[in-house]
Amino acid sequence: MYTPALENLRIVMVETSHPGNIGSAARAMKVMGIKDLRLVTPRKPFSQETFALASGANDIIEQAQIVPTLQDALADCQIAIGASARSERTLQWPQMDARECGTFVAEQLPQQKKIALVFGRERTGLTNEELDHCNTLVHIPMAFDFLSLNIAMAIQVLAYECATAVRLATHSQPMAAVDPDEALANAEALEGFYTHLEQSMIDARFLDPENPRLLMRRLRRLFGRASVTVSEMNILRGMLAAFAGRKFQSRLSSD
Amino acid sequence: MYTPALENLRIVMVETSHPGNIGSAARAMKVMGIKDLRLVTPRKPFSQETFALASGANDIIEQAQIVPTLQDALADCQIAIGASARSERTLQWPQMDARECGTFVAEQLPQQKKIALVFGRERTGLTNEELDHCNTLVHIPMAFDFLSLNIAMAIQVLAYECATAVRLATHSQPMAAVDPDEALANAEALEGFYTHLEQSMIDARFLDPENPRLLMRRLRRLFGRASVTVSEMNILRGMLAAFAGRKFQSRLSSD
Repeated sequence: MYTPALENLRIVMVETSHPGNIGSAARAMKVMGIKDLRLVTPRKPFSQETFALASGANDIIEQAQIVPTLQDALADCQIAIGASARSERTLQWPQMDARECGTFVAEQLPQQKKIALVFGRERTGLTNEELDHCNTLVHIPMAFDFLSLNIAMAIQVLAYECATAVRLATHSQPMAAVDPDEALANAEALEGFYTHLEQSMIDARFLDPENPRLLMRRLRRLFGRASVTVSEMNILRGMLAAFAGRKFQSRLSSD
Repeated sequence: MYTPALENLRIVMVETSHPGNIGSAARAMKVMGIKDLRLVTPRKPFSQETFALASGANDIIEQAQIVPTLQDALADCQIAIGASARSERTLQWPQMDARECGTFVAEQLPQQKKIALVFGRERTGLTNEELDHCNTLVHIPMAFDFLSLNIAMAIQVLAYECATAVRLATHSQPMAAVDPDEALANAEALEGFYTHLEQSMIDARFLDPENPRLLMRRLRRLFGRASVTVSEMNILRGMLAAFAGRKFQSRLSSD
């Protein structure tokens, strides 16, 4: 029942404290057919417990890439989904529950997209800045708000939901070919756009770098939700250049 | 989101070897709102690890009844579902997968039935004799037959499936109240934005009104897909005004 589509699903663990949790996560992934693990600066090196708990998934641990930042872990991904213990936040990101996440992943994977499920620190989860790098959040509905799932358990549930949704979808739908221009922009391209957008707003004095408020976060949320394609990204960046260029031209003519 | 129906769902662990697994299982149950744990002759007494891994579910450990046989654990149950790592056995019992199990449990619980999910030993599972005490088996579909889920992980997945099925059956989901700023912009507001955007692009010579190509259509498609909220619309229009205002200011200063 191994599903090749799941090869494009990545699990990212950010600053994990307990090496044992990385082992348990690897086992949780492997039983569901997910292989690609990235670790963003784990707090401790792998231990005996890591390999004991991986139990048959040592290959996943050995092949796991360790990277310094979340951005590195997501550079070649088109979609990043952040796991959140809380179902509400002050500034609301778009949200899915675990079941919806499975369905979403099963819809997106056959289109050759690389998707990351991002899991934060054991106690404190993901920071708001890290959530800004995610297109959407997923939470696992729980009976009590004051409790949380162990991180490897959360990975197990979401891996299970994704594998189940892919399995159910494979039995039903044929997939369409995708025009490369209509492919989704990857995280690196998106970051380039956000940097360009931010600078343009600063230049236009719309964004005060001393008091940025939530402006960039809100815009990230908007464009993240839209799943911007490569060709749309080109239009948006061309537009920003044109807005800036016009100003530049008019300055030249006034000198 | 606590669901009283789940009070009649029991988890039974048979001859568990590792006291830590009992702790993890308790946490897995509690986060999903399941409280009733029976232990059939666990191999070792509770340890520090049991309580460390239970993390907030100590009450479940403390209230867990320890009984000598599976029959004792099932005495007051109408339905027993045995968890099986293998999806086939020589002598075939009736089988469900995890999703079907959730649906089945959600259908049966409201009829005041007591249902047990039965989990066997870490390495060897349930004996055929023990399976004879079960009405049906459940297995969690996996990518590789030679692997198995950790027992607490299997409890987590089945507890999650049961809780999800009960939740979906109980409420066909009521909706959260929406902050008026987070309401979607209506069509009139969207059209106002598109007009503003188009004029801005013409002013910046990014859009040639003589040869508009598909530019506006593509941008409409992008923003249409994003489901722009009222507050986001205000940001976007403010940004366009700022881009134009800057140009306008520089013209003024050059006159």
